[in-house]
Amino acid sequence: MKKINVGFLGLGTVGQGVWEQLISKASVWENKLDVQIDPKLAAVRSLDKKRDIELTTEQLTLDKKAIVTHPDIDLVIELMGGIEEAKEMTLLAFKNGKSVVTANKALICEHGEELLEAANRAGVLYLYEASVAGGIPIIKVVQEALVGNLIHSIQGILNGTSNYILTRMENEGLSYEEALGGARKLGYVEQDESLDLDGVDAAHKLIILTYLCFHKWFPISDIKVEGIRDVALKDIRAAARQKHKIKLIATLRQKDADEGVHCSVRPSLVPLSNNLASVDDAFNGICIQSDIVGTSFLIGRGAGRHPTSSAVLSDIVDYCRNQGGRKIPESDTEQKLAPSSSIAQPYYMRIEVEDTKGVLSEITQILSSNDISISTIEQEMNSDQDTASIMLTTHECLDGNIDKVKSEISEKSFLKEKVVVFPILPA
Amino acid sequence: MKKINVGFLGLGTVGQGVWEQLISKASVWENKLDVQIDPKLAAVRSLDKKRDIELTTEQLTLDKKAIVTHPDIDLVIELMGGIEEAKEMTLLAFKNGKSVVTANKALICEHGEELLEAANRAGVLYLYEASVAGGIPIIKVVQEALVGNLIHSIQGILNGTSNYILTRMENEGLSYEEALGGARKLGYVEQDESLDLDGVDAAHKLIILTYLCFHKWFPISDIKVEGIRDVALKDIRAAARQKHKIKLIATLRQKDADEGVHCSVRPSLVPLSNNLASVDDAFNGICIQSDIVGTSFLIGRGAGRHPTSSAVLSDIVDYCRNQGGRKIPESDTEQKLAPSSSIAQPYYMRIEVEDTKGVLSEITQILSSNDISISTIEQEMNSDQDTASIMLTTHECLDGNIDKVKSEISEKSFLKEKVVVFPILPA
Repeated sequence: MKKINVGFLGLGTVGQGVWEQLISKASVWENKLDVQIDPKLAAVRSLDKKRDIELTTEQLTLDKKAIVTHPDIDLVIELMGGIEEAKEMTLLAFKNGKSVVTANKALICEHGEELLEAANRAGVLYLYEASVAGGIPIIKVVQEALVGNLIHSIQGILNGTSNYILTRMENEGLSYEEALGGARKLGYVEQDESLDLDGVDAAHKLIILTYLCFHKWFPISDIKVEGIRDVALKDIRAAARQKHKIKLIATLRQKDADEGVHCSVRPSLVPLSNNLASVDDAFNGICIQSDIVGTSFLIGRGAGRHPTSSAVLSDIVDYCRNQGGRKIPESDTEQKLAPSSSIAQPYYMRIEVEDTKGVLSEITQILSSNDISISTIEQEMNSDQDTASIMLTTHECLDGNIDKVKSEISEKSFLKEKVVVFPILPA
Repeated sequence: MKKINVGFLGLGTVGQGVWEQLISKASVWENKLDVQIDPKLAAVRSLDKKRDIELTTEQLTLDKKAIVTHPDIDLVIELMGGIEEAKEMTLLAFKNGKSVVTANKALICEHGEELLEAANRAGVLYLYEASVAGGIPIIKVVQEALVGNLIHSIQGILNGTSNYILTRMENEGLSYEEALGGARKLGYVEQDESLDLDGVDAAHKLIILTYLCFHKWFPISDIKVEGIRDVALKDIRAAARQKHKIKLIATLRQKDADEGVHCSVRPSLVPLSNNLASVDDAFNGICIQSDIVGTSFLIGRGAGRHPTSSAVLSDIVDYCRNQGGRKIPESDTEQKLAPSSSIAQPYYMRIEVEDTKGVLSEITQILSSNDISISTIEQEMNSDQDTASIMLTTHECLDGNIDKVKSEISEKSFLKEKVVVFPILPA
């Protein structure tokens, strides 16, 4: 089995998450890729810092160059942040024949063109799924799933922190300052607050998406970028009166090839009927219009340890596939279907009955004797005046018990039609 | 430049769409993959049938075996439908060293295990993104983007036709029979109506998703599959009174590895707060819960010529990438940013003013002299009793004109705070 050695530049919360997943899911990589992925060495700022994962002293170094020049390391995960040194290390990794996976959106936004060309020349990969909306595979969707499409527009909520602040203002009637204070307390706001509050982080991501759609790197200074600092509670309320929410929307759009690309990041009023209005809290949402597929819409967690780790893992796997790692996974003979009778959920039932005395009491008794308690019930006369529809919802109960109720009611002479039973999904 | 020759089994509406895109976007494949993709030969039932695309007689054959055994064809696109003959042709293609892209969900559902193993043994690819929710890259998302995640559950609206019928019942108060009649007229219902109306098509897709998540093929006969035939308008209305919609929901769920997998296709009541409730008409929607990323949600067009063609193209490109086709696209030097002043859209403005006579008329005059017409306007006294907030929305106007209004108002002595301007998105 092929072995892939991975080196880390930076081992903060995301890096530790990736390291841990590479180890804990080793069997997944073997089964799906026929490779063994080995997290080998991480360059950190302090060797003694307490970390969530257990590491030996041989697995840590203070020397970043030791990672990017290491003879045994195949793939470098750049999670160090910053721009100049990260760029230098990335170029050095390429020069040493190593592919690089990164989450560093500021670096790509500023030097993407140079870095991608350098990777191309060196014959290695530079992968950056984690740089835009970790929980939404937007890079893969634009580059691969929609590869045959011309993108007409993308509108997205790309910064989780500002969306969290706007959501708290909306839902709890907080002022901007109050909501910002709450976000700070939860550690949601980047150290450089301007990234979240002035739309800069969303703009970095927009520049990357614009490159993916139109193969041109535009400088951030050329686009209209406004953050959420001017959004007052009274704006949110005025918008709500007209059935809109205020969201920080990053937009790219091109109607035809002659027209330039419209790019902006601005607080915008989003009608409730637009799917982007349903993207609340720290979630990201992206709406894509393309020539073949039409409208696509994606929602997922934005940044943070988990979504970013998942995106980095996806890029690591893409690297492995590019190295020939691809396998039909072994069939999992252990898997079996759960008996449907064991599923517990609430239900809706409609029972068409003769409108005679005692019917309702018989039905409620059958339910209760099968351990099912009623949540709501209504009876409606049908237009024939002889029959009625009883429509009820239950609290959570076992599918098996609902089946019993259904078959008991089905034997009753008062029943006029097949009993209808639908499960009710959670919110 | 590497050349990839593609052969088609079946050249109906999807096949013609793919063929046409392969030709019209030739420069895209060259620029992104460094390959030339050549649609070479299609096996059809009639050579004389009128088609949307122009073909020479050399490009058509009646002989399917001519495609799967052709010495120059690298990749076969199986769009013939049906099961037994499609299976035979697919296996023959593998035997002849050809990879196969398919949209045939019934075939995969029934013989996926055997076909994937055969492809594996032959060292070729069997790709089926188009088989589930064409406009949503769900296969790629589960297999690649979420590759490091354990999937806890997937709930999806996977059949566009039944969703279209339910949506028309809901929105227009139509009976099931009336809505079905409308869908038939539009050609939305498959010839074998049971596929759409009895949940069978959704179940085929669910079986494929269950395999992707748990690596086991379950027989469709072992899962609970109910279609939409029992959904009456009165059910939809009762659900609406409780803020729910009725949708045909395919579910797979496993809480922990010991428990079996719950699989079902059933009409279900979906609370309006659940994103699946917003998936209307012929759209598909899929909600995924996974261990690292948490909740992800995807919406896109389900079946039909365009989404299915797009998914087939995506698989063709995956095949090319697997053959080493990968390239940083040439920078498109022609691309430029559109001046933001040229964007036309409606706007929201908030203007904080001294509460003195004539202010409103001054403001409305500035708007009108810049060609901007007001849609709504409200004035609210602030708690200090000396100042007021004027909040207005405009009809569509040019960004440049809004900027002029903003700067003219900013010079007025009645202004107490910076003017706030946010664009309004379409529904």
